[in-house]
Amino acid sequence: MQFELTNEFLETLKEDIARFDRDTVSAKVGELYPADIAEILDEVNLQEAQFIFRLLENEQGSEVLMELDEDVRERFLASLSDEEIAEFVDELDTDDAADIIQELPEERQDEVLEMVEDEEHSENISELLSYEEGTAGALMAKELIKVNQNWTILRCVREMRKQAEDVDKVFTVYVVSNDGVLLGIVSLKRMLLNTERTIIKDIFEEGAISVKTDAKAEEIIKVFEKYDMVVLPVVDNQDRLVGRITVDDVMDVVREETSKDYQMLSGISEDIETTDSVWVMSRARLPWLLIAMLGGIVGAMVIANYEDELKLSPQMAFFIPLVVAMGGNVGIQSSALIVQGLANNTLSKDGMVKRILKELMVGLVNGLACSLVLLAYSWIFSYPVALSLTIGASLLAVILFAAAFGTFMPLTLHRMKIDPALATGPFITTSNDIIGLFFYFMIGRLMYTLVI
Amino acid sequence: MQFELTNEFLETLKEDIARFDRDTVSAKVGELYPADIAEILDEVNLQEAQFIFRLLENEQGSEVLMELDEDVRERFLASLSDEEIAEFVDELDTDDAADIIQELPEERQDEVLEMVEDEEHSENISELLSYEEGTAGALMAKELIKVNQNWTILRCVREMRKQAEDVDKVFTVYVVSNDGVLLGIVSLKRMLLNTERTIIKDIFEEGAISVKTDAKAEEIIKVFEKYDMVVLPVVDNQDRLVGRITVDDVMDVVREETSKDYQMLSGISEDIETTDSVWVMSRARLPWLLIAMLGGIVGAMVIANYEDELKLSPQMAFFIPLVVAMGGNVGIQSSALIVQGLANNTLSKDGMVKRILKELMVGLVNGLACSLVLLAYSWIFSYPVALSLTIGASLLAVILFAAAFGTFMPLTLHRMKIDPALATGPFITTSNDIIGLFFYFMIGRLMYTLVI
Repeated sequence: MQFELTNEFLETLKEDIARFDRDTVSAKVGELYPADIAEILDEVNLQEAQFIFRLLENEQGSEVLMELDEDVRERFLASLSDEEIAEFVDELDTDDAADIIQELPEERQDEVLEMVEDEEHSENISELLSYEEGTAGALMAKELIKVNQNWTILRCVREMRKQAEDVDKVFTVYVVSNDGVLLGIVSLKRMLLNTERTIIKDIFEEGAISVKTDAKAEEIIKVFEKYDMVVLPVVDNQDRLVGRITVDDVMDVVREETSKDYQMLSGISEDIETTDSVWVMSRARLPWLLIAMLGGIVGAMVIANYEDELKLSPQMAFFIPLVVAMGGNVGIQSSALIVQGLANNTLSKDGMVKRILKELMVGLVNGLACSLVLLAYSWIFSYPVALSLTIGASLLAVILFAAAFGTFMPLTLHRMKIDPALATGPFITTSNDIIGLFFYFMIGRLMYTLVI
Repeated sequence: MQFELTNEFLETLKEDIARFDRDTVSAKVGELYPADIAEILDEVNLQEAQFIFRLLENEQGSEVLMELDEDVRERFLASLSDEEIAEFVDELDTDDAADIIQELPEERQDEVLEMVEDEEHSENISELLSYEEGTAGALMAKELIKVNQNWTILRCVREMRKQAEDVDKVFTVYVVSNDGVLLGIVSLKRMLLNTERTIIKDIFEEGAISVKTDAKAEEIIKVFEKYDMVVLPVVDNQDRLVGRITVDDVMDVVREETSKDYQMLSGISEDIETTDSVWVMSRARLPWLLIAMLGGIVGAMVIANYEDELKLSPQMAFFIPLVVAMGGNVGIQSSALIVQGLANNTLSKDGMVKRILKELMVGLVNGLACSLVLLAYSWIFSYPVALSLTIGASLLAVILFAAAFGTFMPLTLHRMKIDPALATGPFITTSNDIIGLFFYFMIGRLMYTLVI
């Protein structure tokens, strides 16, 4: 039943296209789900994709369009006339249509909208485009089923038939007042279980979880996850029902947000995939590498201050990578915990000071454990006492500092309304590296003076 | 409309509980959504939570139970009798009920199941428990609405009324054959738009995307995301409809998977939150730190081999952190790209060799860029030529190696059916550090011999 795209399928399909064999291609592709067709179009070249696309019906074509990779779609839209795009827009739900329009160059947007036949549809799309990106207003669709609380079930069914024409999937029937204010929900179950004459007012479930049009994506995701929702109504400032957001749109946003955090942690500055060009991939990765290199240069300057000590005791150099790595690791652990807690909304309710104290406790436990292992090691290999003490003490100092700093930074960024994930990027790791070197050589100088 | 848990609310509620003021607590809590009540119970102590919990009706209580944090729920279940748990299980959907039963100690599971009043419900739960964890069978619920293809709409509505009693939300009405084989879907819309005498066979949409009971979570997520589904039917080996999975359950799984990848990348070995104890947090983080430390010790041994060179040219020590950090960063970038591509199913269709070659190209671009910056820096600060050449050449070598190794490892782990995210953990970074040191000092020895 499910379609699996294989290389063999692709090759024979390309041959069919090369022969301009419309019937065979139609037969192979026409019955597939839009997402499957899109998968094929993502893999063939633009000419081949256009050949397949022209064989599809308008409704099917519009759905395929929605499922394409963004860069493929962009090239596709560029090759279509305003009129053609307007026809697809006519078929799409308002939220998808708005997405398509938004991807067009500024100057084409109005032209396409004017060519959309259904004027109400076109106005609805304009409304969606007027909301700030990432807010509930921009995410929602206008298509929904609503009934007046004073209607009978019979009238509702009649009205729903009309509205259902425009709505792909009926999840929920919303109940509104005469002013359009969202009052609650009436389940299809309830409607099935009551007689046709029953007034909605008497059977509907009062109250519905909703968000305002200006709610941010973060808040919307929280509501969806907390209340396990499938579809969320959106209301304006007067609590009038203006749209609905479905869970599949939110899943995409969740994917994007977690991807962003993951990329930050791995030192990648743009949303790239393995399919992108060498140049795009290099560009997305170079900035972080340059920052790390800058950090390395500053680190070199720090060490340069201790050149004389290094001449006397080159063994000090042996443990540079260890001290630096431990600081970086602990800092990332601490920051990542906060970033993930903020993203999943699972952060404890403690204040900043309590949080840092807790991290310092964790740092103390782990720092002592690590330092003891190291002292044992350096005792076995009979390193000089001064060196052993230096490594043990600086390791503990570095771990404690990195734990506190790694907790402080993302929380502070979050308070300043900056993405806390920045703290898991190379700035902080690099700062930890440099501070670690400072600790190590300062403690080293002290120890060698004391012991000798 | 939405509830926001504040510290003030919690404090006055705790005072009400301390006075055993059932009416006030009931009034404050009774009207809230289960997820909100659960949020409160997660924040108070066990005695207070039990006080609140006893005020709830059975159905409400069972829903609250499902929303609790896992560790809170575990303590809660331990404090309830088998009979009490059986009553809650009776109220829950089969998938939630199975989750609850699974969290009980082995010896209590059968006892509770036997006490469940509704025998069919109890059998359904047992069936779900018999599937392997993480598969579609274990994730699905038995509650769904299905109609026979030979029924009229009138009969369907009658049967659906009966079935709907058990089903919270009607998303989709499935059409089955006399043998129970899943044939397709009939939308409520279609049923609204046709007369009561119409036979389902004539109006239903043939074919439905489904998964088998033994499908893995990864595959299920892919299907949900690719086809933008809200509910997915599950069939057995004879294609008979046996259950359905809803999108909210899948969202939880997506969160878990991405969290796991994120934690691996940040060097945390267990699923911990900032609310966990210092001991739990230390334990989850220590293993990775010890591995990193082991790497640091091996690194120290590598450098120890070059003690004589360091005595002659202590400046070699200056750039140790830089070379090591760059190798680690590039390796993580390369591995993270693969891990994310595998998780999001966006990996290009290239083979291993082509992928590594591409990464080497990216490495070459970025490596050359970084090396040039460094050469310029060392020229300005007039470092010895041998040192400049050593840094430049080893930086390039380290970056190229890390790029190839970082691509090779997760792909190989994935082929061996091991979690590729392991490659982003400290093993690989640490290996990169050590290899980086080797390159640096080997090239250094060569350069100093050549130049001097």
